[in-house]
Amino acid sequence: MATELKDLTKRETNYSQWYNELVVKADLAEQSAVRGCMVIKPYGYAIWEKMQRALDDMFKATGVQNAYFPLLIPKSFLSREADHVEGFAKECAVVTHYRLKTAGDGSGVVVDPDARLEEELIIRPTSETIIWNTYRNWINSYRDLPLLVNQWANVMRWEMRTRMFLRTAEFLWQEGHTAHATSEEAQAKAMEMINVYADFAKRYMAMPVLMGVKTANERFAGAVETYTIEAMMQDGKALQSGTSHFLGQNFAKAFDVKFINRENVLEYVWATSWGVSTRLMGALIMTHSDDNGLVLPPQLAPIQVVIVPIYKNAEQLSGIDAVVKPVVDRLKAMGISVKYDNADNKRPGFKFADYELKGVPVRLVLGPKDIANGTIEVMRRDTLEKETVPFKGIEDRVKALLDDIQQSLYDKALTLRETKTVKVDTWDDFKAQLELGGFILAHWDGTTETEEKIKEETKATIRCIPLDSVPEEGTCIYSGRPSHRRVIFARNY
Amino acid sequence: MATELKDLTKRETNYSQWYNELVVKADLAEQSAVRGCMVIKPYGYAIWEKMQRALDDMFKATGVQNAYFPLLIPKSFLSREADHVEGFAKECAVVTHYRLKTAGDGSGVVVDPDARLEEELIIRPTSETIIWNTYRNWINSYRDLPLLVNQWANVMRWEMRTRMFLRTAEFLWQEGHTAHATSEEAQAKAMEMINVYADFAKRYMAMPVLMGVKTANERFAGAVETYTIEAMMQDGKALQSGTSHFLGQNFAKAFDVKFINRENVLEYVWATSWGVSTRLMGALIMTHSDDNGLVLPPQLAPIQVVIVPIYKNAEQLSGIDAVVKPVVDRLKAMGISVKYDNADNKRPGFKFADYELKGVPVRLVLGPKDIANGTIEVMRRDTLEKETVPFKGIEDRVKALLDDIQQSLYDKALTLRETKTVKVDTWDDFKAQLELGGFILAHWDGTTETEEKIKEETKATIRCIPLDSVPEEGTCIYSGRPSHRRVIFARNY
Repeated sequence: MATELKDLTKRETNYSQWYNELVVKADLAEQSAVRGCMVIKPYGYAIWEKMQRALDDMFKATGVQNAYFPLLIPKSFLSREADHVEGFAKECAVVTHYRLKTAGDGSGVVVDPDARLEEELIIRPTSETIIWNTYRNWINSYRDLPLLVNQWANVMRWEMRTRMFLRTAEFLWQEGHTAHATSEEAQAKAMEMINVYADFAKRYMAMPVLMGVKTANERFAGAVETYTIEAMMQDGKALQSGTSHFLGQNFAKAFDVKFINRENVLEYVWATSWGVSTRLMGALIMTHSDDNGLVLPPQLAPIQVVIVPIYKNAEQLSGIDAVVKPVVDRLKAMGISVKYDNADNKRPGFKFADYELKGVPVRLVLGPKDIANGTIEVMRRDTLEKETVPFKGIEDRVKALLDDIQQSLYDKALTLRETKTVKVDTWDDFKAQLELGGFILAHWDGTTETEEKIKEETKATIRCIPLDSVPEEGTCIYSGRPSHRRVIFARNY
Repeated sequence: MATELKDLTKRETNYSQWYNELVVKADLAEQSAVRGCMVIKPYGYAIWEKMQRALDDMFKATGVQNAYFPLLIPKSFLSREADHVEGFAKECAVVTHYRLKTAGDGSGVVVDPDARLEEELIIRPTSETIIWNTYRNWINSYRDLPLLVNQWANVMRWEMRTRMFLRTAEFLWQEGHTAHATSEEAQAKAMEMINVYADFAKRYMAMPVLMGVKTANERFAGAVETYTIEAMMQDGKALQSGTSHFLGQNFAKAFDVKFINRENVLEYVWATSWGVSTRLMGALIMTHSDDNGLVLPPQLAPIQVVIVPIYKNAEQLSGIDAVVKPVVDRLKAMGISVKYDNADNKRPGFKFADYELKGVPVRLVLGPKDIANGTIEVMRRDTLEKETVPFKGIEDRVKALLDDIQQSLYDKALTLRETKTVKVDTWDDFKAQLELGGFILAHWDGTTETEEKIKEETKATIRCIPLDSVPEEGTCIYSGRPSHRRVIFARNY
């Protein structure tokens, strides 16, 4: 592990390679035998489980319940909503047969041509169609509304270029699908959920995000409005981290879902959908980690504190064991996840490097001299600062330190974003600034044509129109036409 | 709902139809638009989530960690293990293409013939192959062992005849896959996990199970030994509720997974796998429920206690509200999940029928007269017994009642199983007894030939050779040949 760490590419040398290596070296995930699909390893999955638990509690607090809908979607469902099929039919896994048989030459198994499906089935790229087809039978009257349902599921999009966590053919996510009696209520729900995501990003991931509205061009296929949270990675690129869509009556119309309203009139139902995925793992890694490995915010760290003993013989170790065990018990009682690593088959130096690579927020080290002096060494992973402190009261110090690390990580990421967010007013400045990375606040004329030309020429996209943006008159950096507010441009993952 | 309840078929009229109707009427699940795939509705999913949480905690207490492996498996992987391919290739969903395109006539979307996969991919029917292909890179030395990994996932088996929860094309499950340095350790792990399942069935599902070994004929495809837990449903039929397999070195050999042992010798790794699925939902329903609807054991009930007020006007209701709210708070503080249903748009009779149908274990009813008298009405769902008791101390009474219901349900199911388990010594008695339902303890000569003939003639299968069976000399009920112990025969789901 220590040797693996030495091999970790530095961020400034090649940020992208640093990321790819770190995902593997920190035991988070690896490529599988299936193109574009990854294996999420136990350490990576433990972080995802913590994300899931926190998000799930937050969803339930808003009245959402979980359910489960089929993995496979009849091909014809995709065509029902015109925009939706455009967005998703291009890149999906298609099931055409339901049986294999032994090859004639005994060499293995082949697809049985007699077991062809009448209608092909698609592995869900997202579930609006199958869910709205189901809702038709669940909704009759305004009394059945709102319907607030979420599912945790795997989905597939046959991406040509994949990167672990950031863009994989199969990924894990949650997708909420709500149904409402009024447009206002649905819009409010879409807004509520993007706020839940932003709150989660801040409190758990220690990741500041910009909340905003997507342009028509960047909207979810089938949505009337898409809200997004956008985070800035350390290289200045944007990462879309979660979206919430107001779907209007598009899917209700496509699947004929009507209800009797309070005035006894039959009306189409209003909808939202919203999701975050294992992509958040990529966002987490790229927001905080450094050239020594992962840096995890305490709220999502599977191990928050590791204690490593320094000893020369069994007698010394048993002395340390006796002193440490009550500390472990007290930390656990405080709800802190702690690992006492007194394994004898690895040297302390190896352990140090390994826990650094894994991003454990706090490390405690204790030897016979510390016991004699009543001290203990504390290291915080985010700054790598070491300090020798009194042993007595170490639990409270650890607790305070974890809180401090959580806050510091957020502050540091926020400072980076603020430093790397600049206003630009000319096309030349725009192109020059893009090379430096970061978010650019610039005027845009509001047309898809301009947006696409800017993307073609610079690879920069409009990440969002920030929700908190202030009206400001100006001229579009590209077309020179009038503009009424600045939008956020950036290159993105 | 009250009218729906009236329509519920009685168990003695048609047990199978009673089950199918109950699953739908109690809002647990429904058929989807995709053949053989169900939608698990929020109320059903809430029960499954409670099962998941309890099982997951129990797995982790044995040192198991969660991970995630790809949904799709290269077709060629299935052929690597000879028995495995026989068991699973026959009934799997095959992905052959990765893109759709607009139909030439504009009528919708069709499979793009240019997007054919070089090698077809199978939706996992179980993950031994992809996981052991991955383990090859994870395991080098005995220091990497044991490897104790579980995943919560969806799987597909293209069953011809499906029934909700019991046998569906797609189902949710967990599959544990462990790797060990010795045969003994792997066998012990397989045994440990079947004990975890039995313990879970007893403590959470209030369902007694027989633990036993499967015959060679009923073994998992690729296993050396399969352990099973078998439960008896109310109609006397058996339901296999969980299995744990000792896989020997079969998958290690198929995927070339070797390790350097303590003696520095290269050796194949030993394996187990074990799983339970949403089938447990079917087992839960059929074990306890009655002609009035679901009966849920308190440990798995999403709502453990419902409180219904009886009132004539708003003033009475607000008087009841004031008295009930502190009770709700105290029950919640005791960790009891409680719902106070003071909704004004449904009559008490409707509410009573609905909560009975949904299997809420305890119902409390309170009116102005109760308040005057300092009393409250308590009903337990399992026996439908009603009692008027002092209001004071109701929380402790509810707690004790929940414990009592949990135990009573188990006892009742155990009594049923004991009553319906009989020893039989002749072929005529065997056939006669089968018509009465239940488990039959009979002698069998140990051959697959006899086992299959008995199945052909009677539809009875050997459910297991119980782990606690006592050696006993006798003669096979079918062949008359010598036998050394009795095995369990039954018809099954």
